[in-house]
Amino acid sequence: MGKKNIACLGAGPIGSSWAIVFARAGHKVMLYDIDEGAIHEAFDDIESSLADLCTEGLLLDKKEILSRIQTTAKLDEMISTADMVIESVTENVELKRKLLSQLAKIVPPDAIIASSTSAIPGSKFMDHPQLRERCLVTHPTNPPHLIPVVEFCATPWTKQWAYDACWELMKQAGMQPIKIAREIPAFVVNRLQGALIGEAIHLVDKGIVSIEDLDIALKHGFGRRLAFSGPFESLHLNSPLSFKANMDKHQGLLRRMIDETNAKHEWSEGLLDKISRERDRILPPEKIALRKAWRDRMLIKISKLWEEAEKEHP
Amino acid sequence: MGKKNIACLGAGPIGSSWAIVFARAGHKVMLYDIDEGAIHEAFDDIESSLADLCTEGLLLDKKEILSRIQTTAKLDEMISTADMVIESVTENVELKRKLLSQLAKIVPPDAIIASSTSAIPGSKFMDHPQLRERCLVTHPTNPPHLIPVVEFCATPWTKQWAYDACWELMKQAGMQPIKIAREIPAFVVNRLQGALIGEAIHLVDKGIVSIEDLDIALKHGFGRRLAFSGPFESLHLNSPLSFKANMDKHQGLLRRMIDETNAKHEWSEGLLDKISRERDRILPPEKIALRKAWRDRMLIKISKLWEEAEKEHP
Repeated sequence: MGKKNIACLGAGPIGSSWAIVFARAGHKVMLYDIDEGAIHEAFDDIESSLADLCTEGLLLDKKEILSRIQTTAKLDEMISTADMVIESVTENVELKRKLLSQLAKIVPPDAIIASSTSAIPGSKFMDHPQLRERCLVTHPTNPPHLIPVVEFCATPWTKQWAYDACWELMKQAGMQPIKIAREIPAFVVNRLQGALIGEAIHLVDKGIVSIEDLDIALKHGFGRRLAFSGPFESLHLNSPLSFKANMDKHQGLLRRMIDETNAKHEWSEGLLDKISRERDRILPPEKIALRKAWRDRMLIKISKLWEEAEKEHP
Repeated sequence: MGKKNIACLGAGPIGSSWAIVFARAGHKVMLYDIDEGAIHEAFDDIESSLADLCTEGLLLDKKEILSRIQTTAKLDEMISTADMVIESVTENVELKRKLLSQLAKIVPPDAIIASSTSAIPGSKFMDHPQLRERCLVTHPTNPPHLIPVVEFCATPWTKQWAYDACWELMKQAGMQPIKIAREIPAFVVNRLQGALIGEAIHLVDKGIVSIEDLDIALKHGFGRRLAFSGPFESLHLNSPLSFKANMDKHQGLLRRMIDETNAKHEWSEGLLDKISRERDRILPPEKIALRKAWRDRMLIKISKLWEEAEKEHP
């Protein structure tokens, strides 16, 4: 993939983090905000983030990357050469609609338009007839230059070529796109976060645990596992035999764990079978022990990071 | 704190991990299981875990630690010198009751009895009149020698001295105890895990996301944040001003995130105020930026671990 021109609209924390992602991958980035002060602040933040990446050895040359990020007061000039526009302006559907109408007049005919929206389904503002076939939601987790997951959600009008080209561009830039099959409010990441924080608030409200201890339950607890194995994978690594064997043994406990929460989820034997088959495909029995040993080595490395960090953390 | 004698009953993954925790802290450990084969397997696992800790530089001398862990076929002999007994036998209330009855005849009068149970409230099996004042639940997250959180849950009979002595022993051994204010099924950690996995299963069931992508949402997403900042702390770091300022701005989004999940949690303005005040006490406004910069450096270190690990992980 050659160098592209990426226009980042909105220079808040998300917009400036996107600028790092694409400049780091070798692309030319134009960063724009209607507020000039925000642009100055963004460049300060970008410089300091790049410095941190250099300190940790993840980047060699800060200056080179920085030289690929430019800004302009002229939106139309900037957009006229863009291969992709990614908007990270305020979460306001009217503002986003207005921006898209403005873009329709100035973007090249094959430029992709991506949105960082975390809560608004794309179809609510990406329906402009001139643009809608190449618009889609690419919702990052903050900050995207440090957290690679990005939720891809097409609108009913998104063409496959636009979706694929954007996916490819993100992958090449080191992101981890995941496919959200259809528009739902809050997509997947924020629903998962919502489920966790909802139960956390509930437990604090009932006086079961303190706010401080609740955080400890994650950061000195299963949050460490989640940094290296997702929830299904973590369950999988509990049994050396197979996911199905693990479910046969622990299904009762898992059901009780879920039923104890406020959420009333219905799930059939058939669904569990489907999950088991898919997990066994992803991680065949002969690889479980190796993968678990790897995950546990990662846990040791996290313990070590915490041990070193405890001395210096504010 | 001097060296103690710790008896670990049940030599499965939890029991043998506890053996490492206490031997590593300088105590003398006796590991027991009715199944002799389990004991042999446990010693193999312990040796290999200690080797991994040495490789990563978290331990200097494997042999010294290993020499502090012994086993015996004579339970009564072993128990007669124990300062603390920690049981990690199968999750079966009848089995645990039977074990406690047996212990009542042989433990010294001031030994503490702790249980690793993950789902059974202590009062269901820790009511033996000779023992109940010094019994409590200390539920770890697997494996405790790599994940420090441990849930402390007293029964209605637990005396403060026993609770405090056990807390102190765990702290000194590098564990992170958290206080569960009263007995509830699944305690806190498994309710939080239940909420997360329940929503995950729901999203997979509705065909919104694949099982593989769901795991990516955590391990390449907010799971990385959770390894270094809990859910309340993560919310807190979103605003440079204060937790309250963050809530004023993002409360609507947070409520929508939670309402979109199946769980119907009610939470008042008063509760949010209480959480805000407590968070602002834990992390005063002038420290937010420093703490966030620290957390983000930790995220870089996780990116680096992943980058190195991708080359070798199975």
